[in-house]
Amino acid sequence: MIAQKMKGYVANSSVIRAMFEEGKKMAEKYGRENVYDFSLGNPNIPAPAEVNKAIRDVLEEQDPVLVHGYMNNSGFENVRAAVAESLNKRFGTNFSRKNIVMTVGAAGGMNVIFKTLLNPGDEVIAFAPFFGEYRSYVSNYDGVLRVVPADTRTFQLNLEEFERVLSPKTKAVIVNNPNNPSGVVYPEETMKKLADVLVRAGKKFGTSIYLISDEPYRELVYGGASVPFMTRLYHNTVIGYSFSKSLSLPGERIGYLVLPDELEDAEDIQAAANVATRILGFVNAPSLMQLAVARCLDARVNLEFYDRNRKMLAEGLSRLGFEFVKPEGAFYLFIKSPVEDETAFVNKAKEYHILMVPGSSFACPGYVRAAYCVSPETIKNSLPQFARLAADYGLHA
Amino acid sequence: MIAQKMKGYVANSSVIRAMFEEGKKMAEKYGRENVYDFSLGNPNIPAPAEVNKAIRDVLEEQDPVLVHGYMNNSGFENVRAAVAESLNKRFGTNFSRKNIVMTVGAAGGMNVIFKTLLNPGDEVIAFAPFFGEYRSYVSNYDGVLRVVPADTRTFQLNLEEFERVLSPKTKAVIVNNPNNPSGVVYPEETMKKLADVLVRAGKKFGTSIYLISDEPYRELVYGGASVPFMTRLYHNTVIGYSFSKSLSLPGERIGYLVLPDELEDAEDIQAAANVATRILGFVNAPSLMQLAVARCLDARVNLEFYDRNRKMLAEGLSRLGFEFVKPEGAFYLFIKSPVEDETAFVNKAKEYHILMVPGSSFACPGYVRAAYCVSPETIKNSLPQFARLAADYGLHA
Repeated sequence: MIAQKMKGYVANSSVIRAMFEEGKKMAEKYGRENVYDFSLGNPNIPAPAEVNKAIRDVLEEQDPVLVHGYMNNSGFENVRAAVAESLNKRFGTNFSRKNIVMTVGAAGGMNVIFKTLLNPGDEVIAFAPFFGEYRSYVSNYDGVLRVVPADTRTFQLNLEEFERVLSPKTKAVIVNNPNNPSGVVYPEETMKKLADVLVRAGKKFGTSIYLISDEPYRELVYGGASVPFMTRLYHNTVIGYSFSKSLSLPGERIGYLVLPDELEDAEDIQAAANVATRILGFVNAPSLMQLAVARCLDARVNLEFYDRNRKMLAEGLSRLGFEFVKPEGAFYLFIKSPVEDETAFVNKAKEYHILMVPGSSFACPGYVRAAYCVSPETIKNSLPQFARLAADYGLHA
Repeated sequence: MIAQKMKGYVANSSVIRAMFEEGKKMAEKYGRENVYDFSLGNPNIPAPAEVNKAIRDVLEEQDPVLVHGYMNNSGFENVRAAVAESLNKRFGTNFSRKNIVMTVGAAGGMNVIFKTLLNPGDEVIAFAPFFGEYRSYVSNYDGVLRVVPADTRTFQLNLEEFERVLSPKTKAVIVNNPNNPSGVVYPEETMKKLADVLVRAGKKFGTSIYLISDEPYRELVYGGASVPFMTRLYHNTVIGYSFSKSLSLPGERIGYLVLPDELEDAEDIQAAANVATRILGFVNAPSLMQLAVARCLDARVNLEFYDRNRKMLAEGLSRLGFEFVKPEGAFYLFIKSPVEDETAFVNKAKEYHILMVPGSSFACPGYVRAAYCVSPETIKNSLPQFARLAADYGLHA
């Protein structure tokens, strides 16, 4: 009786979420300290103190009817102006409030932009490995997701393969920088090449190809890595952002889309994104949280915490003989499975109470994702378990 | 370049929202006190003190990682249990947390349930007058909205016409009780008859017809009116609720769906609604607000305020010769236009700085909606303007 399309979604429902639920059950059974749950990107560090202070201050200082009330579907004008100004200061852009739509997280933003752009049958290209939910976001609007196979040597963008996947039907390309699940950062040089390919393809096919730059991990980079700001490199770029990771607010569902004036059909897109926000049932991004984050645009979670976790897990696993490309961003390690069927590896790891997500969920079988947004104790205590797991597969450094 | 479907949505974009924007501009131009904006259902009274206290208490007492973190896509288990228990206490039902999905407002909930249920071409029936956004919510999933014409004598459900609109393609029926825009409450007797018709039609066609009871105004009733709780009258009922009006939190986007075990295919629907919440990009209802409303389930805005507004506006307009069915719920008055083309009437009213919404937006031309969730001063000061408007049309009591 449920919709035919939903049957498919339910059957292929998020392995990540299933793991999350399984992790909670295992924690109840064995004790939280005896389960090493690397499954979900649910930050373990609290929001910076500025956030809760901002929430309290908004409640104290601002008219409650305004704080909890409706506003323009794209968000409070002053919040959007503050976001625009913050971007201009950081990236030398020239945005104003009309270029910003506040969204229900990055996932909400992705749905808004695909609802805005996609006709049935339009193709959207994603580079493997990628966040599996992109499939649903595209198929929600009857778009067709085309996948560029991973370059498993570097996990950088596979631009040669990309050119082969581009077609006259390509409406949009998703890039996720830093990348979930590989933790890789695509440098400016690569992104310039990507922009060149897009410009050439647009001319060749006589089409406009939109670049959807999904950037929830923008602020989470380590060791001096830097994430290029794509609207300066390619005119047809839409940026999706979320405060979920930068301010540890994943449950609050707050982010924004950047819709530059340089977009082809910018005015139509800005107007349609406003309408899409409303009719998809978001109506607007949560109001109190909009006002709170506008006061914290320069705040960040404790990046040192993630960086220390990154080093501890990477060094620990490397010593045990596990292989991966050392991540420069986000909070994920994408580990090569010692056997071809990575689901078998994931199941074996579970016997040691280690929870990781199979790479198949990211269109990249043969690898598994470990999210290190956990407590340092979890990592520390997991390493002896990982050692047993490594021994089972005869790994050595 | 935007999606073909979006062009239609943008062209027919919400008249209500356009009015809201126009009202803000008029207020800037003429001064807020000289504009009588009855256009939007944006509550003018603050959330009850319990709400802001609950927000502060949650921030104070609970682990910030939990407060702002991910949880099950259907919501925090304890929040869902608290909602279920509160309903059981009030309505003698027997819900548990698995029957509750926390949603991004009622609009989010409607999208989740239609995503869950609708195959392309499935028909959904709504009774005129109805909230115009239902059209988009249904068409988002390629459903077809069928309209039961209004009974403009009483604005009660037109059950004879309803039987003629029912078909083997009918997948769902929307009822909005109390009704936006008429303010009418459908009594238990009527709803029992509706249930009978649905049971008969289901048998006749060999189908399951879901009743979607959209109840954001459930708590806003006056003069002893009572809203029947539909899951007790019809087994195949899904309830959509929002705290937007009962707690004056429209901008916060917080509500829930009730998915009873008595639903046909209940388990599939519960599982699919969870997945739909995620893949539509809501991911989950805002976390802090979930925890806050769970502490305020018995709180209500000041209903006396709305009731006084209702009486003042109804009596004032009645004295001037305007006609309407006296509302028992919500905060709307649905006024008969003195001329057939109610848009001309709405435009004439604008000359007196009175903003109302044409009934065409609610599939009921010839009427206009005035939202009285405004300050009493706005109503008081609008009456001399309404008097001039009445005089223009030669009205008298």
